[in-house]
Amino acid sequence: MGKQYNRLDKDNAAVLLVDHQAGLLSLVRDIDPDKFKNNVLALADLAKYFNLPTILTTSFETGPNGPLVPELKAMFPDAPYIARPGQINAWDNEDFVAAVKATGKKQLIIAGVVTEVCVAFPALSALEEDFEVFIVTDASGTFNAMTRDAAWDRMTSAGAQLMTWFGTACELHRDWRNDIEGLGNLFSNHIPDYRNLITSYSTLTEGQ
Amino acid sequence: MGKQYNRLDKDNAAVLLVDHQAGLLSLVRDIDPDKFKNNVLALADLAKYFNLPTILTTSFETGPNGPLVPELKAMFPDAPYIARPGQINAWDNEDFVAAVKATGKKQLIIAGVVTEVCVAFPALSALEEDFEVFIVTDASGTFNAMTRDAAWDRMTSAGAQLMTWFGTACELHRDWRNDIEGLGNLFSNHIPDYRNLITSYSTLTEGQ
Amino acid sequence: MGKQYNRLDKDNAAVLLVDHQAGLLSLVRDIDPDKFKNNVLALADLAKYFNLPTILTTSFETGPNGPLVPELKAMFPDAPYIARPGQINAWDNEDFVAAVKATGKKQLIIAGVVTEVCVAFPALSALEEDFEVFIVTDASGTFNAMTRDAAWDRMTSAGAQLMTWFGTACELHRDWRNDIEGLGNLFSNHIPDYRNLITSYSTLTEGQ
Amino acid sequence: MGKQYNRLDKDNAAVLLVDHQAGLLSLVRDIDPDKFKNNVLALADLAKYFNLPTILTTSFETGPNGPLVPELKAMFPDAPYIARPGQINAWDNEDFVAAVKATGKKQLIIAGVVTEVCVAFPALSALEEDFEVFIVTDASGTFNAMTRDAAWDRMTSAGAQLMTWFGTACELHRDWRNDIEGLGNLFSNHIPDYRNLITSYSTLTEGQ
Amino acid sequence: MGKQYNRLDKDNAAVLLVDHQAGLLSLVRDIDPDKFKNNVLALADLAKYFNLPTILTTSFETGPNGPLVPELKAMFPDAPYIARPGQINAWDNEDFVAAVKATGKKQLIIAGVVTEVCVAFPALSALEEDFEVFIVTDASGTFNAMTRDAAWDRMTSAGAQLMTWFGTACELHRDWRNDIEGLGNLFSNHIPDYRNLITSYSTLTEGQ
Amino acid sequence: MGKQYNRLDKDNAAVLLVDHQAGLLSLVRDIDPDKFKNNVLALADLAKYFNLPTILTTSFETGPNGPLVPELKAMFPDAPYIARPGQINAWDNEDFVAAVKATGKKQLIIAGVVTEVCVAFPALSALEEDFEVFIVTDASGTFNAMTRDAAWDRMTSAGAQLMTWFGTACELHRDWRNDIEGLGNLFSNHIPDYRNLITSYSTLTEGQ
Amino acid sequence: MGKQYNRLDKDNAAVLLVDHQAGLLSLVRDIDPDKFKNNVLALADLAKYFNLPTILTTSFETGPNGPLVPELKAMFPDAPYIARPGQINAWDNEDFVAAVKATGKKQLIIAGVVTEVCVAFPALSALEEDFEVFIVTDASGTFNAMTRDAAWDRMTSAGAQLMTWFGTACELHRDWRNDIEGLGNLFSNHIPDYRNLITSYSTLTEGQ
Amino acid sequence: MGKQYNRLDKDNAAVLLVDHQAGLLSLVRDIDPDKFKNNVLALADLAKYFNLPTILTTSFETGPNGPLVPELKAMFPDAPYIARPGQINAWDNEDFVAAVKATGKKQLIIAGVVTEVCVAFPALSALEEDFEVFIVTDASGTFNAMTRDAAWDRMTSAGAQLMTWFGTACELHRDWRNDIEGLGNLFSNHIPDYRNLITSYSTLTEGQ
Repeated sequence: MGKQYNRLDKDNAAVLLVDHQAGLLSLVRDIDPDKFKNNVLALADLAKYFNLPTILTTSFETGPNGPLVPELKAMFPDAPYIARPGQINAWDNEDFVAAVKATGKKQLIIAGVVTEVCVAFPALSALEEDFEVFIVTDASGTFNAMTRDAAWDRMTSAGAQLMTWFGTACELHRDWRNDIEGLGNLFSNHIPDYRNLITSYSTLTEGQ
Repeated sequence: MGKQYNRLDKDNAAVLLVDHQAGLLSLVRDIDPDKFKNNVLALADLAKYFNLPTILTTSFETGPNGPLVPELKAMFPDAPYIARPGQINAWDNEDFVAAVKATGKKQLIIAGVVTEVCVAFPALSALEEDFEVFIVTDASGTFNAMTRDAAWDRMTSAGAQLMTWFGTACELHRDWRNDIEGLGNLFSNHIPDYRNLITSYSTLTEGQ
Repeated sequence: MGKQYNRLDKDNAAVLLVDHQAGLLSLVRDIDPDKFKNNVLALADLAKYFNLPTILTTSFETGPNGPLVPELKAMFPDAPYIARPGQINAWDNEDFVAAVKATGKKQLIIAGVVTEVCVAFPALSALEEDFEVFIVTDASGTFNAMTRDAAWDRMTSAGAQLMTWFGTACELHRDWRNDIEGLGNLFSNHIPDYRNLITSYSTLTEGQ
Repeated sequence: MGKQYNRLDKDNAAVLLVDHQAGLLSLVRDIDPDKFKNNVLALADLAKYFNLPTILTTSFETGPNGPLVPELKAMFPDAPYIARPGQINAWDNEDFVAAVKATGKKQLIIAGVVTEVCVAFPALSALEEDFEVFIVTDASGTFNAMTRDAAWDRMTSAGAQLMTWFGTACELHRDWRNDIEGLGNLFSNHIPDYRNLITSYSTLTEGQ
Repeated sequence: MGKQYNRLDKDNAAVLLVDHQAGLLSLVRDIDPDKFKNNVLALADLAKYFNLPTILTTSFETGPNGPLVPELKAMFPDAPYIARPGQINAWDNEDFVAAVKATGKKQLIIAGVVTEVCVAFPALSALEEDFEVFIVTDASGTFNAMTRDAAWDRMTSAGAQLMTWFGTACELHRDWRNDIEGLGNLFSNHIPDYRNLITSYSTLTEGQ
Repeated sequence: MGKQYNRLDKDNAAVLLVDHQAGLLSLVRDIDPDKFKNNVLALADLAKYFNLPTILTTSFETGPNGPLVPELKAMFPDAPYIARPGQINAWDNEDFVAAVKATGKKQLIIAGVVTEVCVAFPALSALEEDFEVFIVTDASGTFNAMTRDAAWDRMTSAGAQLMTWFGTACELHRDWRNDIEGLGNLFSNHIPDYRNLITSYSTLTEGQ
Repeated sequence: MGKQYNRLDKDNAAVLLVDHQAGLLSLVRDIDPDKFKNNVLALADLAKYFNLPTILTTSFETGPNGPLVPELKAMFPDAPYIARPGQINAWDNEDFVAAVKATGKKQLIIAGVVTEVCVAFPALSALEEDFEVFIVTDASGTFNAMTRDAAWDRMTSAGAQLMTWFGTACELHRDWRNDIEGLGNLFSNHIPDYRNLITSYSTLTEGQ
Repeated sequence: MGKQYNRLDKDNAAVLLVDHQAGLLSLVRDIDPDKFKNNVLALADLAKYFNLPTILTTSFETGPNGPLVPELKAMFPDAPYIARPGQINAWDNEDFVAAVKATGKKQLIIAGVVTEVCVAFPALSALEEDFEVFIVTDASGTFNAMTRDAAWDRMTSAGAQLMTWFGTACELHRDWRNDIEGLGNLFSNHIPDYRNLITSYSTLTEGQ
């Protein structure tokens, strides 16, 4: 038989946002800052939209790495928030793993900064424990395209699936009829080209 | 023994054109528009040329996504045309799957917009059902090279084979002697460099 | 003596936003859409911030070119708004020129879509009438880098000065002490890296 | 006073197509072949559309350089056609210069292959004789971006203006109201993104 | 135990040069022509240097595809030369397969134009028959980087190993002491940077 | 169960620096020289910092390849230093293999010049003998991105893991609390952006 | 007569380092951080080496812009250091201009962050006062290549000359015989390729 | 009247080859080595072909900069050869200037390594003395594209004309009929695409 399609399921998925900190973001140079900011907020928006359990974690946030991006903190006021005292791999932090397991979900949607460390390390650890791991590549950043390629290769060799925030949203939503306006808003807010399509469409169909 | 070569066979292949819609095309930025338009039409031409069963499908074509590109509609007036009422993954639409299965073919040549959703989702679903899946990469488009790379990786990990329209045409044709003029026309119409070779050659061999 | 420095002066400058329309924006491929949207809104914000007279104009907005981007219309409800009935060069429209001249300003800050037409044509016309012309390059877009380079060359040969929205804001502001918070907000809202600097700085100096 | 705007005037312009030959086109690598072919045909279409006197010339067309691209020959059956017996600079050919001067036009729109030779040489010669010269940069090609940049610099230093086929069309047309359908067709046939806008627009406004 | 290292062995390897024809070379745009020509000749030189059985084949060489590059024909006057009458996949030609098998080698070093067809097809066929396949990536060319990436992926999924001509030479040679001058000449003739090292070194150690 | 995470362990890892020679470095063109020099020295610094057994080797260092980069020699005065008399694959040199095995480590961190030869060959040999192999991609260099991609593909197909020096350092360190200052210095000395974060942070928290 | 060559003269030149601050550096994305750091330090080294009067200035250094890079402060302990209280254009600060004029030099070598503001504004002001202005392009940084191109164009239109740190050093030095070792050290410390040349040369000429 | 066309004239032009030395060539990274080597040799070939007086000069050729590329020395055994004892700007060397003036030519065709120093300095000096200066951009190299752009800008601002070796050859030759075979050979030897055109053409017209 064919290869099983491990498909994202909104009832079985959690989101892990790892180290999107104000200082660390200055290290990200494989994606333009305007685009990267948009992608991270889009991922956060979709996590909210689909009511996915979301876990925030930071590394040394009182030092040069800087605080978590304020928008993320504001969007998830009740989410587990693990300010790691030193562990570089979030999975080495017991509170983090406990929070992940407390969600009861087996599909982990992971994004973070920088890709080869803050994303790859917990991804590899989670794969070892037989979670299904989905990397939101465009909400994860690193020093340059070469370090990204190396990180992707290491993760996919271990079984991680590479996603984008758009693909993640689409796979979770399944059918536009579940909520046309909701998904449309998500796209309109984070894809300028899509917003333009909606603007033109609405103008023509709804009159002046 | 060696690894089996799953080779395209014109008697066992169908073409799925997914969501090449006027609005969605404005999202495609990993391939230049002139080239992309040419690639999509080249794939359509080869589907006609080899008489491959072809299935058209669209997502929400009455909304901002816009109508199917008119050229495709005109080229395949009798092809199954599934205007999906909401399913993002075409394979979630029963009519679409029924149309695919009605072809009786086990090799699916897929292209669409955008790659990580409209192409990848049905590709992964089809692989799960043990179809052989061939992605026409250059007739599929997405937001940027990074999202394309992620989409490719996900599909190849599941067993999809990455093709181009040119490679697809060559593998289906097998031998120039089956029809020199037909294949030559296909190339001449869609590869400017090849057309130039033919122009120079014809001028010299056929005189003024 | 040296070459005169024609410096932007907030008391002598007006902003012309030319054809940032939902349809035309799909033609812009020399700047990434996320970045371009941000740049255009940043320019609009700075026009508001410095209270510069601002003129909006569109080309055929009831046809395929689509309506003006709604955000711009909303930000400048009282600005002269010239929906040109056909003139491609906005300067060929008498109402537009009248609106420009009614501002009494001699420095014109111009941005638009597409660069070699909607920006370059009125820029060249204005230079001919001895206005000082400042092109906001990163809030203007076109088909690709090559067409942009050609457009820049034509405009600078005629005496236009190439600016960015950031340079424009800095040259208009002159001194941070005129309003630290205002300029800081402008940068924080449109330069993710700068926002991160402020986030880290504020966290450390204002404490938890 | 300001700098004079030397604006293209359809009553005072001629088009020179220099050495778009099937062999020489294989040398063009600064523009993708699909795009380049489209740009050259777009320029030819606009020359026809505006009824501009058009002159064709070739270099050694019976040798390896190959024949003129057949589409161009077919589009301008009655145009002066100067197959130069050896002069590399078309302006060194008396028949060519005579044909140019016979048009009575002072604005020359030039495109050709390769840029630094077949375009630049006649452009520099024409500028010396006080013609206004407009280079259609995207319908001219050369070995790579570096040789193009060098060629552009030489020509602009001598006073040539850098255009694109789209900018040329817009500057010649002046006002959509002169012929909406005609200009719309030109754009629809050569700008896929614009065609998509028209498709979506027409479907919504004319559709059932 | 670890993964077996299938290492090139000069006593067990043959070289297949597929369709390096004067016309087809104009299609190659993923590698600069100067570099590509050098790489192909470097591969031919190393085949000669290591006395590897070498097989030449062409597709339709009397038509627009053009003749085999003369340098290759001249370098291998006694090599099997299969001018295929029509088969696109060289492996579909019995004479070609017979020539390959007549070498008695199990390691096939393959290069050709274009990568996804002339290289990939025989590579996949050979892998199916349990040959070890080594692709000389930089002596193979195709339309652009995207089509190359797709072709590489298809071949490596089937077990092909991706090489460069330099890596191939080094793996075959094993030890400089086998012939310092011979390998040095090969590098000096095809790697300008290496030639410069030798020039500087020789001048200092042998100079007057 | 999930896929095992073969994680770098500072008690089980050795570093192999292969052929970072003054002459050979002129061949490296897939990474900018400033960055490459920094990456190699960062890897050396981390090897020192974690007290990893480190082995140096060179190829023909008295010829055009040139001497080992002096900084490396100076940093590891007591490390095994194998000046190979001719073997291209370091693993073909008995002294080198003996030195590797004498470390008693099963994890080999490898970097060198050029990637597809000096790195890939010993990596493939070591994998065959069941070592775990970690390639420090950004401290390894080669002719261009294409040859790098081919080399990476060959190594990962055999089971090598692709790392960066930063990821290597982070995976070895595990927890900042093991030594904040030490790791901070390593980053500050080799990541300008990180140094800037520390500078700003220190200035604000430690005052003038 | 020809165009006068305004050549850098070490007896008539001063260096202005504008706003190389730890925070602002995170905005620089048109040059890789490793290379940019090297370039700035190279410029500082050459200023020291040629004993050029050097002036340091910062913008809001106690705020998010951050402190001057410590290395620069340490290298020029006795240089005029103008911490501007608010002026964005350093030339608007009387102390700065006074310090410049106190040098008695007419040639100003300027570098800073970001190019279109901190470099361009004082450059344009200085040109207006008839200084000769030399921009050290590679020790100046900005958001991206497009903003850089625009900034360069504005400055060169006003008469600034574009230099690199290497060109600046060479033009100031005039003749190697003035001090071979000094210039050699400067290059060796900041050009890895040049250091490698020296290493190979020294090894061969000075023996083992 | 129009702008004078300063056209290369084979009776009034000399070629200056500045510092194409084996060591310095390792600094060139704005052009690929294979292409650069080809371009330099093409320029040398055309100098020979047109019998242009040619002057060779080197900087410190007994030190790390290394000897002149041997091919150049061999091609011009009787040319003035000025091994400068220390002057960085060749024009500061009296023997060099004397050699230039001894040619009696007013048009100087200059190429060298690195562009912003070895080319730009003598170019600016020669322009000051009212020579016409033509830079062969593609036979000149430097550290990266940014330093090249800066160098070009400085030279063109002073009146230098930017050429390529191909444009230079064409402008000197004027008319194919002066010597078809000679110019054809020059192109065939240095432009692989042109050689392929000739191969295909010859095969069809001369073949059996």
